[in-house]
Amino acid sequence: MLFFGSALSTTSYVLAKSVIQRFDSSFRERSQKTVLSAPSWKEVQNPRTRIHFSTSKVRCRCHCLLKSGDYTDFYASKEHASHLGLMMRGPGNELPPNYLHLPIGYHGRASSIVVSGTQIRRPWGQVQPVESGVPHFRPTERLDFELEVGAIIGQDSVLGERVRIDCSRDYIFGYVLVNDWSARDVQRWEYQPLGPFNSKNFGTSISPWVVLQEALEPFRVPAPRQDPPVLEYLNQNLNRSNFDLNLNVYLNGKEISRCNFRGMYWTFEQMIAHHTSTGCNLRCGDLIASGTVSGKEPGTYGSLIELCWGGKDPLVLPDGSRRVFLEDHDEVVLRGHAGSGLQRVGFGVCSGQILPAIG
Amino acid sequence: MLFFGSALSTTSYVLAKSVIQRFDSSFRERSQKTVLSAPSWKEVQNPRTRIHFSTSKVRCRCHCLLKSGDYTDFYASKEHASHLGLMMRGPGNELPPNYLHLPIGYHGRASSIVVSGTQIRRPWGQVQPVESGVPHFRPTERLDFELEVGAIIGQDSVLGERVRIDCSRDYIFGYVLVNDWSARDVQRWEYQPLGPFNSKNFGTSISPWVVLQEALEPFRVPAPRQDPPVLEYLNQNLNRSNFDLNLNVYLNGKEISRCNFRGMYWTFEQMIAHHTSTGCNLRCGDLIASGTVSGKEPGTYGSLIELCWGGKDPLVLPDGSRRVFLEDHDEVVLRGHAGSGLQRVGFGVCSGQILPAIG
Ligand SMILES: [Ca+2]
Ligand SMILES: [Ca+2]
Ligand SMILES: [Mg+2]
Ligand SMILES: [Mg+2]
Ligand code: NI
Repeated sequence: MLFFGSALSTTSYVLAKSVIQRFDSSFRERSQKTVLSAPSWKEVQNPRTRIHFSTSKVRCRCHCLLKSGDYTDFYASKEHASHLGLMMRGPGNELPPNYLHLPIGYHGRASSIVVSGTQIRRPWGQVQPVESGVPHFRPTERLDFELEVGAIIGQDSVLGERVRIDCSRDYIFGYVLVNDWSARDVQRWEYQPLGPFNSKNFGTSISPWVVLQEALEPFRVPAPRQDPPVLEYLNQNLNRSNFDLNLNVYLNGKEISRCNFRGMYWTFEQMIAHHTSTGCNLRCGDLIASGTVSGKEPGTYGSLIELCWGGKDPLVLPDGSRRVFLEDHDEVVLRGHAGSGLQRVGFGVCSGQILPAIG
Repeated sequence: MLFFGSALSTTSYVLAKSVIQRFDSSFRERSQKTVLSAPSWKEVQNPRTRIHFSTSKVRCRCHCLLKSGDYTDFYASKEHASHLGLMMRGPGNELPPNYLHLPIGYHGRASSIVVSGTQIRRPWGQVQPVESGVPHFRPTERLDFELEVGAIIGQDSVLGERVRIDCSRDYIFGYVLVNDWSARDVQRWEYQPLGPFNSKNFGTSISPWVVLQEALEPFRVPAPRQDPPVLEYLNQNLNRSNFDLNLNVYLNGKEISRCNFRGMYWTFEQMIAHHTSTGCNLRCGDLIASGTVSGKEPGTYGSLIELCWGGKDPLVLPDGSRRVFLEDHDEVVLRGHAGSGLQRVGFGVCSGQILPAIG
């Protein structure tokens, strides 16, 4: 991951362009002199340093090659979890019993994180047997996107020590948009008992700009009330907030979803406190994704499986074609912004186009 | 991860000492000149290079700083999966329906991989509500080990391309012992629907020596026959083999388990072919663990939950104390070796002692 800083204005934010770079030692040698160490990130957030960013000297210093580190994906939208539960288990049992007590998460694949614009190859996968009892191995027929927001960790934590809920915000460097591409047919067959694996590991796209946390501070809004109350180690009392962040999804240029991040049930601070409550250590550059962002109303869902309700309710595109899942050459674009006018903070696009499966 | 090579003899193997090193840019700068790039690993495996390892010059060149990359944990012992299934679901439904069709795996946490000898802090975690309906947050009361073997990847694969079953062996650099520490009470409450997360992310120990794959070649034995036959992309035909690798577990000095790796249902080649069948890319230094190695007979199980059958059948230690799960200050030592006499190849120990939970 290569961070490239530049001050776009002297307002209260800095954007850092992030380019995912596959680990490559020759590249690493070339760029070694421009590596920005973790403590220097603090400098980036220091206003006096920031205003120098437009000079080419500092621009150069701000290159930062990180190892990709770990990628954790959560499930923080109660609406998203409810929609999936409703489709799978019917009304009355939408949410898993642990859902309201802890932010459910799982470890994702860090190697296949790619930057916006990278094409995504339709994966092959093993899918459930229908009649013969023998599963099939074929290109996925239920390829989906997931609209998510990701936090990039900017500070190492110590293995064996907890990051307390009141400190967890300090560990966040900034935010990106995330598209957690998913193969639903593969997921369905593989996910018991150890969770999603191949259905998620073929690619995860992130937006090319990391928006510093500081840039989003003006857009904090109260997060939804939690009922039942959470355990002490997850309790933020009055400080529980999300960002008022508008999110949009476009499929082949047509807007198919519009929602807001403010409704997420679990906050990033809670995710980090839970993640590290065992002593699990965070490292600079780790990606922590929110899970699919969905609202309550139709048209505010962050995945095709919800928008088309498991295939029952196709989307109609401007060319008259219908979609229940992604087809080859389809392009998905995520956009996000907070504020408006001169105060607007944008994430740039997080785009990806589907390539046909390898024969 | 720091690999340090030395030729212990001129026999058919080389051991590489591996020390996990937390990412630290100042360290990285110091050691940059000794970074061994991926292609150079091939050199390591070249006999002519190998015999120079005992000279201090080559010893220095053999330092290799890797990013930790990704860690994937499989579930390849049919016996282990059956034992857990039997405890949880009773007879008749031991194995999940997908078990015989694909090597089940999930992504683990790379940041908390530690080298043998590192003490393991008992984690806190959220556990299932009993009567009140409110879950508890407390130090785990069901701390366990998992005896596993891990493959270290020695070659990058390409995102979007598959590593075919017949080539997958070439991607393995060597092998380590792995202890995938597990908090069973935490696991039970959190694992639905997205798999184990906090119950596994507080520490994973690996042995300090990476045994090159070449060193183990003389000890290949046929792997168990697979019935039903597997799909073509997982089919190794006559080449299906495991290593005849003796494994032992000691708790506070007493041997509590003795088993062999040869009985694993899924081979590392199959795990790699499945893992990359979606186009997911591997990177140098990735750790792929086999999952708990268990045999059929009592006394050959690779975890306490099996050895004590979920708490019903305590172990008695030499000091007269009993164990169903690990107590503070307990030390678990894994050992592994193939062959005997001058042909013996050992892994060194993979040890870890439990520290009390932080108050
Ligand atoms: Ca997701
Ligand atoms: Ca395991
Ligand atoms: Mg993904
Ligand atoms: Mg582990
Ligand atoms: Ni070194």
